[in-house]
Amino acid sequence: MSLTQELEHKIKLVNTYLKKYMQRAAASPPPVCEAMEYSLFAGGKRIRPVLMMSAYELFESDCIPVMPFACALEMIHAYSLIHDDLPAMDNSPLRRGLPTSHMVYGEAMAVLAGDALLNFAFEVCLETAETDASRTLKALACIANASGVHGMIGGQVIDISSEGQKLVYDQLKILHAKKTGALICAAVLSGAILGGADAVQLESLKAFAQNFGLAFQIKDDILDVEGDSATLGKPTGNDAQGLKNTYVSLLGLEKSKYLLSEYTKKAQDNLSMFGEKAKFLLELTQFLAAREK
Amino acid sequence: MSLTQELEHKIKLVNTYLKKYMQRAAASPPPVCEAMEYSLFAGGKRIRPVLMMSAYELFESDCIPVMPFACALEMIHAYSLIHDDLPAMDNSPLRRGLPTSHMVYGEAMAVLAGDALLNFAFEVCLETAETDASRTLKALACIANASGVHGMIGGQVIDISSEGQKLVYDQLKILHAKKTGALICAAVLSGAILGGADAVQLESLKAFAQNFGLAFQIKDDILDVEGDSATLGKPTGNDAQGLKNTYVSLLGLEKSKYLLSEYTKKAQDNLSMFGEKAKFLLELTQFLAAREK
Repeated sequence: MSLTQELEHKIKLVNTYLKKYMQRAAASPPPVCEAMEYSLFAGGKRIRPVLMMSAYELFESDCIPVMPFACALEMIHAYSLIHDDLPAMDNSPLRRGLPTSHMVYGEAMAVLAGDALLNFAFEVCLETAETDASRTLKALACIANASGVHGMIGGQVIDISSEGQKLVYDQLKILHAKKTGALICAAVLSGAILGGADAVQLESLKAFAQNFGLAFQIKDDILDVEGDSATLGKPTGNDAQGLKNTYVSLLGLEKSKYLLSEYTKKAQDNLSMFGEKAKFLLELTQFLAAREK
Repeated sequence: MSLTQELEHKIKLVNTYLKKYMQRAAASPPPVCEAMEYSLFAGGKRIRPVLMMSAYELFESDCIPVMPFACALEMIHAYSLIHDDLPAMDNSPLRRGLPTSHMVYGEAMAVLAGDALLNFAFEVCLETAETDASRTLKALACIANASGVHGMIGGQVIDISSEGQKLVYDQLKILHAKKTGALICAAVLSGAILGGADAVQLESLKAFAQNFGLAFQIKDDILDVEGDSATLGKPTGNDAQGLKNTYVSLLGLEKSKYLLSEYTKKAQDNLSMFGEKAKFLLELTQFLAAREK
């Protein structure tokens, strides 16, 4: 399979399992269920689940056993976007070219749909996972740590508290390491934990995920300046106008592109010990660095 | 030990462990940590953790191993109150006589503090529990199910969607069974699961928890009408004025008191198979039915 074929195959699997798990919520009060599905299926690259599945496949040939965890990561990502978009937070009317949750369902239901998705992420893993109990606990601990105050939520707190202030490079790196980096890292590490990785392998994969996450964020910031708004599904030049701290606004376009290529190379180097097994992750890293949306 | 001595001892344990677990969050961005602690220590009867500890003690003599789970229940309860009080939900400026989270920290931080507490509940259990892995997974699944769309969040969705409408008795029972009953039930059941209860014991404890939860809610509604606002730390007569659906507004005071005594008796009967071991739970049930706040 070519990279794009395999990527499409994995994304299809994620969508199939997300639908399957959402059926478990079907007996719950309809409005919240509808709002959860709306945000889960409003586009998105499914990067986190794909990373988890691929990390698991460094150790096992079939990623089906980790689908609850892969989908949980996407639920956590979706909940974070719903809450980030709320009037009290970023007050965004649009996300990926579609009205945000609170614009469609009202603010109260958007808060609850976010809560429900975070809760459902753990629920699905705890109720359906058939992986080894001790590995399941370790993988879930890794995910919970990354999505909490030390990770994603902590990043959002820094982001909100620093709006309108100019950050220096190291502060920006910390912000992104928490806000988006932590969950990307947990995707790779929890996949590897479930696959039975040893300490040395986990160390290399952690370095890979950190470099991958940085490259991913820098590319996002570059696309916000250079990208085509129709392709991206959102207005460009947004971040720079709103005094948002981005790599491009801080370092300029040229330096940002240099860093993108550096972190991409480093991420790929971190996979060397896995040889041929890491082919998909290697190509995915390259593919995302060159993406146009 | 008398009932009140044992209750005080258990509440102290909960507070000690809540503080201990919050130290794990100390390195996270300060504002969110402060907001989490503010709501965790803003009063509250600690009913859910006390129920869990007592259910575990039907099987084991020392409840220390279940403290992560007991505290997790209190974190989930605290998060639900923060989000319920938000301007987009119940818009409450006060809770237990104190300003609510969004009044003190602003709306954005209140949303994040709620998210953080829900996440932290799972994080603490997954990172610190030393109970048997398979029981840990089952107990957490039970808690996650109760706090999600089929339980507490589902109840809040019904509550919000039915505001201003008059509910019939069966609808009110479903609302409360989800909104407050599910987590009370999960407190008892997860404690029993961790203690190694068999299917028959779990069935009896489920019935106990359901009757206990109903009695607890009915008493709450009675206190809202009859209670002393200074003792309660909130204005009374609130629910009736605001067209909130309560047992008293639906059935009247006399019938509500009759039901309170019936469900209290039923709950106590459900404990018969545990004999002397259930002494604390029996007395606690009686104590809460007679409480004045």
